[in-house]
Amino acid sequence: MKYPKIPLAQTVVQLCKVKQIQHIILSPGSRNAPLTIGFTHDDYFKCYSIVDERCAAFFALGIAQQIKAPVAVVCTSGSALLNYYPAVSEAFYSHIPLVVLSADRPKYLVGIGDGQTINQEDVYKNHILYSANLKLDLDEKKSKKQDDLPIMKNIENRLESFLGLQQNIQDYNEAEINIAINIALENEGPVHINIPFEEPLYDRVEALSVNPKVIQLNVEDEIESDYQTYAEIWNKADRKLVLVGVLSPNSVEQKFINQLAEDDSVLIMTETTSNLHHPKIVPSIDKLIAALTPEEFQVLKPEIVLTFGGLIVSKKIKRFLRDYQPKHHWHVGKNKANDTFFVLDKVFKQNINSFFNAFLPLTIANQSKYASFWLSQLENRRKNHIDYLNKIEFTDFKAFHSILNTVPNNWQLQVSNSSTIRYLQLFDVNPTLEVFCNRGTSGIDGSTSTAIGAAIGNTKPTLFITGDLSFFYDSNALWNNYIPKNFRIIVINNEGGGIFRILPGHKNTANFDYYFETKHHLTAEHLCKMYNFEYERTKDEFELNEALSKFYEPSNKPKLLEIFTPSTQNDDVLLNYFKAVK
Amino acid sequence: MKYPKIPLAQTVVQLCKVKQIQHIILSPGSRNAPLTIGFTHDDYFKCYSIVDERCAAFFALGIAQQIKAPVAVVCTSGSALLNYYPAVSEAFYSHIPLVVLSADRPKYLVGIGDGQTINQEDVYKNHILYSANLKLDLDEKKSKKQDDLPIMKNIENRLESFLGLQQNIQDYNEAEINIAINIALENEGPVHINIPFEEPLYDRVEALSVNPKVIQLNVEDEIESDYQTYAEIWNKADRKLVLVGVLSPNSVEQKFINQLAEDDSVLIMTETTSNLHHPKIVPSIDKLIAALTPEEFQVLKPEIVLTFGGLIVSKKIKRFLRDYQPKHHWHVGKNKANDTFFVLDKVFKQNINSFFNAFLPLTIANQSKYASFWLSQLENRRKNHIDYLNKIEFTDFKAFHSILNTVPNNWQLQVSNSSTIRYLQLFDVNPTLEVFCNRGTSGIDGSTSTAIGAAIGNTKPTLFITGDLSFFYDSNALWNNYIPKNFRIIVINNEGGGIFRILPGHKNTANFDYYFETKHHLTAEHLCKMYNFEYERTKDEFELNEALSKFYEPSNKPKLLEIFTPSTQNDDVLLNYFKAVK
Repeated sequence: MKYPKIPLAQTVVQLCKVKQIQHIILSPGSRNAPLTIGFTHDDYFKCYSIVDERCAAFFALGIAQQIKAPVAVVCTSGSALLNYYPAVSEAFYSHIPLVVLSADRPKYLVGIGDGQTINQEDVYKNHILYSANLKLDLDEKKSKKQDDLPIMKNIENRLESFLGLQQNIQDYNEAEINIAINIALENEGPVHINIPFEEPLYDRVEALSVNPKVIQLNVEDEIESDYQTYAEIWNKADRKLVLVGVLSPNSVEQKFINQLAEDDSVLIMTETTSNLHHPKIVPSIDKLIAALTPEEFQVLKPEIVLTFGGLIVSKKIKRFLRDYQPKHHWHVGKNKANDTFFVLDKVFKQNINSFFNAFLPLTIANQSKYASFWLSQLENRRKNHIDYLNKIEFTDFKAFHSILNTVPNNWQLQVSNSSTIRYLQLFDVNPTLEVFCNRGTSGIDGSTSTAIGAAIGNTKPTLFITGDLSFFYDSNALWNNYIPKNFRIIVINNEGGGIFRILPGHKNTANFDYYFETKHHLTAEHLCKMYNFEYERTKDEFELNEALSKFYEPSNKPKLLEIFTPSTQNDDVLLNYFKAVK
Repeated sequence: MKYPKIPLAQTVVQLCKVKQIQHIILSPGSRNAPLTIGFTHDDYFKCYSIVDERCAAFFALGIAQQIKAPVAVVCTSGSALLNYYPAVSEAFYSHIPLVVLSADRPKYLVGIGDGQTINQEDVYKNHILYSANLKLDLDEKKSKKQDDLPIMKNIENRLESFLGLQQNIQDYNEAEINIAINIALENEGPVHINIPFEEPLYDRVEALSVNPKVIQLNVEDEIESDYQTYAEIWNKADRKLVLVGVLSPNSVEQKFINQLAEDDSVLIMTETTSNLHHPKIVPSIDKLIAALTPEEFQVLKPEIVLTFGGLIVSKKIKRFLRDYQPKHHWHVGKNKANDTFFVLDKVFKQNINSFFNAFLPLTIANQSKYASFWLSQLENRRKNHIDYLNKIEFTDFKAFHSILNTVPNNWQLQVSNSSTIRYLQLFDVNPTLEVFCNRGTSGIDGSTSTAIGAAIGNTKPTLFITGDLSFFYDSNALWNNYIPKNFRIIVINNEGGGIFRILPGHKNTANFDYYFETKHHLTAEHLCKMYNFEYERTKDEFELNEALSKFYEPSNKPKLLEIFTPSTQNDDVLLNYFKAVK
């Protein structure tokens, strides 16, 4: 086997292997050549080459989202790693383990005018769990020219004073790499390892010269000592709202959901991204609460809100619980708890299943009619939803209906941000589908790349639904050699940022259309030709249903379906919906 | 006229106007609506709408590069501003005034699980001249719900303790905005103003409610008190090298260059990005020094190196001056001086013209034959260069020859990084052309967007020359409604990162081709259809010269010419060149 000659590169690669980081996304570059050589010459690693680092990092995020294990991205020095930042911040807020391995120049060559050189250390400071700034062993020294000038003497002296550390630098770097990867695993989020390399960069050797020490991961649940106190508060409350944010499929045992759902004092609200299912839950929050009156909100107001999972899509539920604050907000989960309603008073910092396992046996079902009342309300809205569908013209709303009716069972659904994910919340989604969306930062910047990564990280066929702005924003996502043939994209093209038409702007003025909606006349057709996708477009309901009837069939290429909808009608149909379903 | 209702938005917009920030690049969003309303309703501002923030910021950079005045980019909250970061870092190292105006949520809504919310304050810390974190006046207070819960009391108390500041918050914000913009102007670089806005965001009013104070800029040259001492050292030296990095056209008065060029002890080396011209300078450094022997380098070794301008493209000159260190390295310029050769011992922190005006009268021309010897060497190389061109096959090298022979006089030349800018250094470029390249970070990430911005910021017609990887990386640059009809793009498509074939890698192995060269078979044709460019492709010298003969003629659309070159021959032709010209 071939290894990079530089021991620090060997160390990084070996530790990634020991820590079972198998998927490595490489972007081209010279400074990172030692890492590229190391990863690509070892069959343990699944290496991918992606040129645009912004896409590379979101692609990695998509894989990590699915395999629930760290994925590494590897780039050269300079601005390359800044292009990772949008995905790093998404990983930070979505608790996805992403390991950034950035090659750097030796420190003595930073800030003196060399090309592709920036201040890489701690560059993600605001959104990173750990930054390991590796150090170069003092090869630096020999690259300095001897000279009788005072300035050279100064450099000499500085290096000499540093020399005491020399024997420990390998230990230091090994420890830092271990710590960073362990934190990514344990705390589920992004970490950054910055790795200086001295030239020559391309040399290879036949045997490893290092055998890095491995620091084992030490994961412990923080177990609550006094569940009884909380169970007593819980049992006394007639109105308990369980609100679930983003959650991977199968994160919570169904028996716990069943038990909660059978307690009439417990109303469970989920979103499509919660991936939880039970007939007695509210899976489309806005459909239920959008048009409530203040009096009805008083009836809905819970005494306790119990949250778990990640971020919540529905703005309306957040607004409601800030305006009608519960007495208690408890959160369960090992990651950072958000004080979303300004009343968070208890965090069970533990695995959700272990919490329910300890807590639920202490609870007593309560027949308060809280849940059954609101579930019956939801049933009415579901009927009205169907009536409304039969009345309206073809628009975004109807397109989502058609799409969601036809996605085959057991597919994975990836959804882009902005209006796409919000529309999805209004429908009862087939429970065999797994649903994902980058809700950490809710950006429109990397959804396509994430979806493609997820299609790699999962064995299920993947459908990605996106709006036009998100799709064109991340068009470089398609510059990717790994897109499975069964990957499907649906672009809802309403020729601009349709979501802005729903907001209280000043729509139908030239200024609004131009700067807020950012109207355009682009189509995905040319990108499909460029990147070898099968392409089809539809402009009405008939064409759409026709196209969907064959869309999921096996094919020799991935496919993209572009659905054109009427931008000036979409917003009215959506805004009227909330009144109509009540 | 219409103004945003929010006083802080009025304040930002008014101060931008007073400080003559005229070009405003807006990306769509809701949190930044108050700024969008403010800028777009005042005819003073030239507003542009660009969806992809990465492109928006490079586009702004291109305008600022040309007008030499600050340009503002405006984005919504969340990951949007992270996409600005590659351009912010380029602006930082290229000393270009870029003003980032990022809308944010009020602080009490950050970190509690709201959508599109990240830690925006100080996010560019490693690469920004100043970060102004504006504060919200205490409207916050009223948005809090009254409640008898202890946690709400705490929030109340925290706000009360903050209340003492209330009357001064407008003053504080005004001062911060003034400081940030003044620093961008005075120190020539990027600044970040983070601006929290509370809902409602879209309200408009007929009159301004603020009249922000203006802090005047106070720019003073640091004048050296003792030019005489340095002139004496200078006059005693027989070998003085003047090395010029990136420099805007007309930055230095020609009379100073003439005086230096007539002193035979002064060898002037420039690059195409230096935009300086004189028959007695070396405008293609690598052509002269690439194949020198150690003995010849000893002869070339200067006693004094005087540098001015920005970063230097030639790696070979940096290597030479580190290996053969001069006694003195003096730098002239107001921005940060780089200790590129580890012997920097004097910085004249002042305007280049004011330095020469004071210094040159104290110097005495010295007939040491240093310059004339090396200029005669260069003449030989120029002859060999022509001979070599007549011998070689059609490759990248010959394509550059054809292109540079045909660019009309007085055009602006924008060049992408990596091999494109390096090839350009080997040719004597028509001195009526102005040449620009993003050498701050030398990234491949935003060259097209920068070139398009520059075409807006300058009245000259613009030709942008780029490699294929850079071009596809920044393909969203073409998603831009402002591209002038006379804008021209030439893509040298050698189907991968040709530069890697020149480096000491292991070319012609599958691993190399895939992970380093990142070979592909993309063409720009589909993007041209998508974004309405005239497209032409060539695959040999005959077709190329034919295409170039009509390429610069006026047209109804911008044009793109894609030149396919043979990737497996380009590197040999280039590497042999350096031996052949000597």
